[in-house]
Amino acid sequence: MLNFTYQNPTRILFGQGCIAGIKKEIPKGSKVLITYGGGSVRKNGVLDEVKAALEGYDLSEFGGIEANPAYETLMQCVDLVRSTKIDFLLAVGGGSVIDGTKFIAAAVPYEGDPWEILEKYGAGVKKALPFGTVLTLPAAGSEMNNGAVITRKSLQAKLPFASAAVFPKFSALDPTKTYTLPVSQISNGVVDTFVHIIEQYITYPVNAKVQDRMAEGLLMVLIEEGPKALREPENYDVRANLMWCATLGLNGLIAAGVPQDWATHMVGHEITALHGVDHACTLAVVLPAMLKVRKEEKRQKLLQYAERVWGLTEGDEDSRIEGAIEKTRGFFEAMQVRTRLSDYGITSGNIPVLLEQLKKHGMVRLGERRNVTPETISEVLDLCR
Amino acid sequence: MLNFTYQNPTRILFGQGCIAGIKKEIPKGSKVLITYGGGSVRKNGVLDEVKAALEGYDLSEFGGIEANPAYETLMQCVDLVRSTKIDFLLAVGGGSVIDGTKFIAAAVPYEGDPWEILEKYGAGVKKALPFGTVLTLPAAGSEMNNGAVITRKSLQAKLPFASAAVFPKFSALDPTKTYTLPVSQISNGVVDTFVHIIEQYITYPVNAKVQDRMAEGLLMVLIEEGPKALREPENYDVRANLMWCATLGLNGLIAAGVPQDWATHMVGHEITALHGVDHACTLAVVLPAMLKVRKEEKRQKLLQYAERVWGLTEGDEDSRIEGAIEKTRGFFEAMQVRTRLSDYGITSGNIPVLLEQLKKHGMVRLGERRNVTPETISEVLDLCR
Repeated sequence: MLNFTYQNPTRILFGQGCIAGIKKEIPKGSKVLITYGGGSVRKNGVLDEVKAALEGYDLSEFGGIEANPAYETLMQCVDLVRSTKIDFLLAVGGGSVIDGTKFIAAAVPYEGDPWEILEKYGAGVKKALPFGTVLTLPAAGSEMNNGAVITRKSLQAKLPFASAAVFPKFSALDPTKTYTLPVSQISNGVVDTFVHIIEQYITYPVNAKVQDRMAEGLLMVLIEEGPKALREPENYDVRANLMWCATLGLNGLIAAGVPQDWATHMVGHEITALHGVDHACTLAVVLPAMLKVRKEEKRQKLLQYAERVWGLTEGDEDSRIEGAIEKTRGFFEAMQVRTRLSDYGITSGNIPVLLEQLKKHGMVRLGERRNVTPETISEVLDLCR
Repeated sequence: MLNFTYQNPTRILFGQGCIAGIKKEIPKGSKVLITYGGGSVRKNGVLDEVKAALEGYDLSEFGGIEANPAYETLMQCVDLVRSTKIDFLLAVGGGSVIDGTKFIAAAVPYEGDPWEILEKYGAGVKKALPFGTVLTLPAAGSEMNNGAVITRKSLQAKLPFASAAVFPKFSALDPTKTYTLPVSQISNGVVDTFVHIIEQYITYPVNAKVQDRMAEGLLMVLIEEGPKALREPENYDVRANLMWCATLGLNGLIAAGVPQDWATHMVGHEITALHGVDHACTLAVVLPAMLKVRKEEKRQKLLQYAERVWGLTEGDEDSRIEGAIEKTRGFFEAMQVRTRLSDYGITSGNIPVLLEQLKKHGMVRLGERRNVTPETISEVLDLCR
């Protein structure tokens, strides 16, 4: 096991009706700004429920935070918060709204140009406005971690930052709020969560048995519950298990003490940036090929994955590994997420530009061993067609 | 899944050499009191290592905190802390030292008689002196939770308390510090951790698949690594996995959203109080009989345990359940912890007094359904002989 530091102070309120409890989590007399996205929380009643729970507070709203939240939009909110002396933010939505709110929270008290927060990976952020979240879309895990990804449209840059100051004070997770999500968002959420876990699990073995068992457990729950979520959209326990999986899949716990990969995510980001393909779809395309191309360096963990997650114990090593990769692809397809570049209209001709973008963004040594070069990625993308 | 609230702010520093990092976790200029137990940390060099890490701080010491830490001892420390204006406590040891330090931390600023903290289950505790821990014995899980059990010798009372104010600020977990532990303490630690997890896992099903998979994963790691820890006392990864298991087994995570039992622990406490048997030994005696007697109400989870943890899938349900219980007993015995009352010189004649003590302490409706009466316990103890 590798040495690690782990701390996660976010308070989780979980279960049907938990939104009613958020009042206790926000200091009395706070001037609260509710942030949200495209307006679905307005239509489905979640925003009203939140406001009812916060009766008596001085409430205002900032809507319109996009998927891939834009620096330009968020800076408008920063100005608003500063000028109206808001002292608590409440993000109501999915990963994009929460990520955007983390940036706002960090930018408001920041002395200097807030762009530095993204340019320097949050290094300068020592304090932030306190904020909570009401999660409506399980996928990103942002509700219980301290990272965010923000896009600056004018520079075509999508940059992450992290700071201990931007853990949510609390997150309310009510599985019933996911009942009305479109099928594609549930599918994407399950695939996104699955790949988050794989990035922290299928690397090289360091004898971290606790972390391995937890990762395998979460993967098995996704495999068991994911397809049910499509068939039975109002099955409470299915939604509850998927929601808790998504949170635990990226709250730092399974990452503590193990190597991490994230090459699939980096390639996926470029596909999204260039072709507008949903984040989860890019992961479903890239992961099977990534595992295939890097089979040798990941051999031991792939065999463990094949046996423990998919029950593959027959045949020689290579056939078990191939079997596990195909099972993974099959799972994504069963979740109605297509797994080939061609499914999204991307052809061989697009690959050189993708590789150029990766190089341009400095993504030349990826993976848990920092040995994944553009040449490796070229091979991967070739297999993704 | 049941509704839940979960928050755990303790910062974990994990791995060989991590004690050197505690300096960053204690505010500069703090007046620090190091608390410890019988002196093994003095002999094995851990205390020196801690002091070296805290060079430049105003340090003092309070040793002599007993196994089953005594209110009387701890109150001496409370007086010392108050009179010398200590502002940070550092517990160096196992669960007893950490539990004791939690009580000291809560008692120092308490207005009123500190005994109330135990009498009223910590209800009045809103603040506590900040403290950290350096763990030397993985078992109790106290290093990452907010509970403690304190004994008041003069009243023959052993009482728990909990408060959000007594989470350690940080805990340093260096697996190499467990190399010199006596075999019995490693054995006891593994059994204690195992039964902690079982108390939160083998109850009735609530479709909490995430929590179930995590609990099963931790149990499998204990089964795999426990015996190795006896054979290879300086196998780093074995000790690291056991240490992290013990912490995660009782930090609230696997308890969130599921029913909990704890009847085995309550019966075990009485055996310890009357006969001085080690805590873990009492659990190893009581658990197999407890599961056997309450087989019907725990049937579904016992079958799941049999299949997923022990791989028992052949034969009818009852034989699989029996098999899992016997495997559990066999595991404790393999860990060199005996599983019969007679192994500790306790006979049928002692059982009535044990039952009387349980009643006297109000333990008349135990278990996840509050249906475990002294009659049930009588049957259980009869099977423990």
